[in-house]
Amino acid sequence: MIVEMRAGASQEQLDAVISRVHSLGFEVLLNVGTDKYVVAVLGSNTGQVATDAFAVLPGVASVTRIMRSYKLASREFRPGNTVVRVGGVAIGGPNPVIMAGPCSVESEEQMATTAQSVKASGAVVLRGGAFKPRSSPFSFQGLGDQGLDILRQVKALTGLPVVTEVMDPRQVAEVAEVADILQVGARNMQNFALLRELGRLRQPVILKRGLSATIEEWLETADYLLAEGNDDVILCERGIRTFETATRFTLDVSAVPVVKKNSHLPVVVDPSHAAGHYELVPSLAKAALAAGADGLIIEVHPNPVEALSDGLQSLTFSDFGRLMDELKALGEGLGRPLQTLA
Amino acid sequence: MIVEMRAGASQEQLDAVISRVHSLGFEVLLNVGTDKYVVAVLGSNTGQVATDAFAVLPGVASVTRIMRSYKLASREFRPGNTVVRVGGVAIGGPNPVIMAGPCSVESEEQMATTAQSVKASGAVVLRGGAFKPRSSPFSFQGLGDQGLDILRQVKALTGLPVVTEVMDPRQVAEVAEVADILQVGARNMQNFALLRELGRLRQPVILKRGLSATIEEWLETADYLLAEGNDDVILCERGIRTFETATRFTLDVSAVPVVKKNSHLPVVVDPSHAAGHYELVPSLAKAALAAGADGLIIEVHPNPVEALSDGLQSLTFSDFGRLMDELKALGEGLGRPLQTLA
Amino acid sequence: MIVEMRAGASQEQLDAVISRVHSLGFEVLLNVGTDKYVVAVLGSNTGQVATDAFAVLPGVASVTRIMRSYKLASREFRPGNTVVRVGGVAIGGPNPVIMAGPCSVESEEQMATTAQSVKASGAVVLRGGAFKPRSSPFSFQGLGDQGLDILRQVKALTGLPVVTEVMDPRQVAEVAEVADILQVGARNMQNFALLRELGRLRQPVILKRGLSATIEEWLETADYLLAEGNDDVILCERGIRTFETATRFTLDVSAVPVVKKNSHLPVVVDPSHAAGHYELVPSLAKAALAAGADGLIIEVHPNPVEALSDGLQSLTFSDFGRLMDELKALGEGLGRPLQTLA
Amino acid sequence: MIVEMRAGASQEQLDAVISRVHSLGFEVLLNVGTDKYVVAVLGSNTGQVATDAFAVLPGVASVTRIMRSYKLASREFRPGNTVVRVGGVAIGGPNPVIMAGPCSVESEEQMATTAQSVKASGAVVLRGGAFKPRSSPFSFQGLGDQGLDILRQVKALTGLPVVTEVMDPRQVAEVAEVADILQVGARNMQNFALLRELGRLRQPVILKRGLSATIEEWLETADYLLAEGNDDVILCERGIRTFETATRFTLDVSAVPVVKKNSHLPVVVDPSHAAGHYELVPSLAKAALAAGADGLIIEVHPNPVEALSDGLQSLTFSDFGRLMDELKALGEGLGRPLQTLA
Repeated sequence: MIVEMRAGASQEQLDAVISRVHSLGFEVLLNVGTDKYVVAVLGSNTGQVATDAFAVLPGVASVTRIMRSYKLASREFRPGNTVVRVGGVAIGGPNPVIMAGPCSVESEEQMATTAQSVKASGAVVLRGGAFKPRSSPFSFQGLGDQGLDILRQVKALTGLPVVTEVMDPRQVAEVAEVADILQVGARNMQNFALLRELGRLRQPVILKRGLSATIEEWLETADYLLAEGNDDVILCERGIRTFETATRFTLDVSAVPVVKKNSHLPVVVDPSHAAGHYELVPSLAKAALAAGADGLIIEVHPNPVEALSDGLQSLTFSDFGRLMDELKALGEGLGRPLQTLA
Repeated sequence: MIVEMRAGASQEQLDAVISRVHSLGFEVLLNVGTDKYVVAVLGSNTGQVATDAFAVLPGVASVTRIMRSYKLASREFRPGNTVVRVGGVAIGGPNPVIMAGPCSVESEEQMATTAQSVKASGAVVLRGGAFKPRSSPFSFQGLGDQGLDILRQVKALTGLPVVTEVMDPRQVAEVAEVADILQVGARNMQNFALLRELGRLRQPVILKRGLSATIEEWLETADYLLAEGNDDVILCERGIRTFETATRFTLDVSAVPVVKKNSHLPVVVDPSHAAGHYELVPSLAKAALAAGADGLIIEVHPNPVEALSDGLQSLTFSDFGRLMDELKALGEGLGRPLQTLA
Repeated sequence: MIVEMRAGASQEQLDAVISRVHSLGFEVLLNVGTDKYVVAVLGSNTGQVATDAFAVLPGVASVTRIMRSYKLASREFRPGNTVVRVGGVAIGGPNPVIMAGPCSVESEEQMATTAQSVKASGAVVLRGGAFKPRSSPFSFQGLGDQGLDILRQVKALTGLPVVTEVMDPRQVAEVAEVADILQVGARNMQNFALLRELGRLRQPVILKRGLSATIEEWLETADYLLAEGNDDVILCERGIRTFETATRFTLDVSAVPVVKKNSHLPVVVDPSHAAGHYELVPSLAKAALAAGADGLIIEVHPNPVEALSDGLQSLTFSDFGRLMDELKALGEGLGRPLQTLA
Repeated sequence: MIVEMRAGASQEQLDAVISRVHSLGFEVLLNVGTDKYVVAVLGSNTGQVATDAFAVLPGVASVTRIMRSYKLASREFRPGNTVVRVGGVAIGGPNPVIMAGPCSVESEEQMATTAQSVKASGAVVLRGGAFKPRSSPFSFQGLGDQGLDILRQVKALTGLPVVTEVMDPRQVAEVAEVADILQVGARNMQNFALLRELGRLRQPVILKRGLSATIEEWLETADYLLAEGNDDVILCERGIRTFETATRFTLDVSAVPVVKKNSHLPVVVDPSHAAGHYELVPSLAKAALAAGADGLIIEVHPNPVEALSDGLQSLTFSDFGRLMDELKALGEGLGRPLQTLA
């Protein structure tokens, strides 16, 4: 942390800054500039101290954090890659993982046919939502408990591990009984009550990036899960909110290499929610894989025209099959063949 | 809703669109353009149907919603202004309301002195957080239950109604015992589990706008509260996330007249969180009042330099007193004198 | 500037950083942290050196600029307020200035009636565009030279100083013959060829903020004008591009106090372009004045329904008259009465 | 165009809308809803009429444009792909094109060694800036005419076609003598005076997307070039401005499939300016190629540490060589092998 004093700050103001540095357990190094003092705050945990602690002191012109605000999610904390294992699948290793399925669980038949089809095309994890966060109270809210039952049956039928969303801290235990991976949606990224419950689990969690969360805030949020003892955290980029309206969200494909550089956690990409339209999904899926993503989550529906939610961004079985062929060839071209079921 | 078919769409595709319109209970009016069909979907609830329901159909080029997606919060639904009454205070009427207090409840003494000071300066509601949402798990998380106890005592002492945040659906009942107004923070704007619990209460709720929520999404979220039967909803603009970094958030002051035009709900402004710096708070407070806000929520602390959270954006008692003098003069100039305690 | 070395950076890498600091004429102060070196670069012009000069060196983890990148526009450079004088009007002094007129010059009659009406209501500068930047080549592009002639005549008729836009460096001399203030539009904020020509003039320039320019970049751009010797620069906030679509742009009202704190230049606000709709203009105009703006530029048209451009955001004469009454009362309430013609 | 009247709008107001529709040469179809009128405006050029033309009329609640605002750049206007040919290179055909070179022309030796190296690695177009747009007047502004001379010599030496930026309408002729492709930078995307000059040329132009331009506005701007008769327009995505600060800009990789869907023009990607850091460039380059880009523009410098501009985002010769090997393998995996010199 670097504290820049105003030109003309008094010795007393400088002393108050130094005294606060010491009270927080850090060391000071004083830089005497041509027209002002600059105080360097030294210590390995300065990233976790709010800059406000100094900015609020009289005579301070600006405060700059140098250490990152996240800690447990950082590559400094754990230099090697975290690999999350679920069923026979390893997320974060050399082979990218394709997860697929419908937005919402709608019926046992819908889930069973989808699971069998996406498995046949090469997906190794099944997605499907029982509890749905919807912008409007008048929209379909998911099948709830009945949806969980369907997921349980289809999982038994196909052997595919299942990822599904949890929205309410009171439902974590119930969802965890069925889900192999619990998903935190973008709108709940900073639902700290929910995160604390999930941190206490010993099951993998997919943490979607908030619509307007910086990568740094996203990794800070991962720290909530890691700090409670859950090491199996998978990050998921799903598009951010910008001024552009041609797509539902703007896929921030740069988040993949940025996360890979700064964190040990695996990062997957959801091209479906970013695009908002099935015609754009293949391009974004390929871009994400080429950028280095550890996996993709893709929405697939037996009949998108009749889907109860997100039909427009869902691929049909045949479109998904074609995309998988392209992704397999792409994985080979990248030297990172797609993961297959053992 | 307007459904534009692609040039060259088939009669069968057109029929499928018309059939879906009828199945949703709406009327069709067909526009035969020079080179394409345009289908108008008529009915008073078309705003609550996702555009995807049509966009997903083959042969459709684009779908445009004309009706708003929110309903209960709209001025069409209730033409007159909603006025929320709490203690002797009326929010949404002709006289703007000033709410003030610290970011976090830190001690009884801190709350008592602040409450007495802001009351003396003209504030009519006391703010203070017992449960604090913090980006990092390593930051101060609020005093919790002890904080609620302190709020109870200070309320008894000063008679000021209290607004405080609730973050967890399991804590709603407990917080509601103390709070006169329950606040939903920006990061929880779309925490639907929490919103449903609050909708079942019969106590006023302040719904802060999400960091990247459009005004339309914000009003849609208010519908969650209204649909459960809670009519006492107060909206609060607190800055949105943009590319600009000179302020913590960008205060969207235009949200005030836009909400006033489209909704019957009262709208207040939090200049402190938007600014992120005490030096900017007075300008933004005055701008919000001049734009037509029904009230302001301002952070005040007996000693910002020692505050456990948000000290940098908190006003001292004397700064707040000076600002209140300016706001009173401004209210007179605007023909909207500030509300005083009965 | 603070250069943070990676943990484990070599002595040779550190020496290369120090050597570059010296080659740029700055001083070094070395901070030896617990696990890494931090190099403080000291000197009064470090703000004008790109951080890349150091970030590119091997072993460097991050570089943080502490000094601002703009210089001539900063309050450090000139502590007192710059007051721009044109005709009998002073922009940047204690009394806010109202400028008004149509988006485009359409005819002599349109300009003459508008000028007389806004003058009668209290405006002291006339606006009107002869050259119009339009997103589409198929839109009305302005009357050009004929528009300049009309401005000349109406100026002679009413005595009001005139502000008009210039878009092309080849037209600066011609526009400067008629205009009292030359305006650089938002889309040309970083048209450096144009800025250099305007910097060589000795006439006031209004520099509109780019749609996605940070306040810092805006002030850096003002440096282009100031560096060429033109001191009469007026900044104009006109809304930035964000995700919100309820308004044409998002008025960043916070820019007013931020500019006032960091720069000596006057700052005015254009509520019309930000709002995009006449119903929102009065609220934003009042907010801007209350925030401390040195003036407002408001679009007024004799018959907005027939305007050739921007009719939707233009006020009628009577709406403008009513708004002026409110602004006068507001100016009194703020202790900053509006400026009147001598 | 769809004009929605307010509930309760009068017959007279409706008639005024219909009359304006007819005066613009369009047809009307009237939709009588349950509680309001909706007027469909029919005709093939409605996209080029501003929505304001109707929104400004009394009794109108909202206006929605259905036709796109751009025309000549649209795929409706020209269904097949435009292929731009320069030297022996075809941009927009089946084989992606790699362009490379330094940000700025710094010396003959720098350009000659770079051109020979990138050519050996497989680049088919050379980039290098003689005139540089810089945020600050105190930064290096390019070698200007001397830079053009160097480009001429290096072009003769290597036979590579050259792309270079032009910023000033007065310099178009001079730059066009040397450049095979003239580049319009992001900050000049809406510099209409410059665009008109370039539209009159018969040489290819690269039009970079503005920092905050929507894809629709970008294509509207391409219409300026096309309307003047220059058909050889290449679009270039180079990152947009968002709230994220981990990268210099946010690469909007979705722009590639969106442009491909809606326009016949080729689209290339500049991963260097988007990333802002050499470590991120390879990921973004691969993502862009996988998304379907017609080419890439990559910054390469013999010694980035000593570059006069943008060193941090420049690749060394060996890094570029490694990336080219990856891009070649990726192109094969995608079924789109990179273009080579004849």
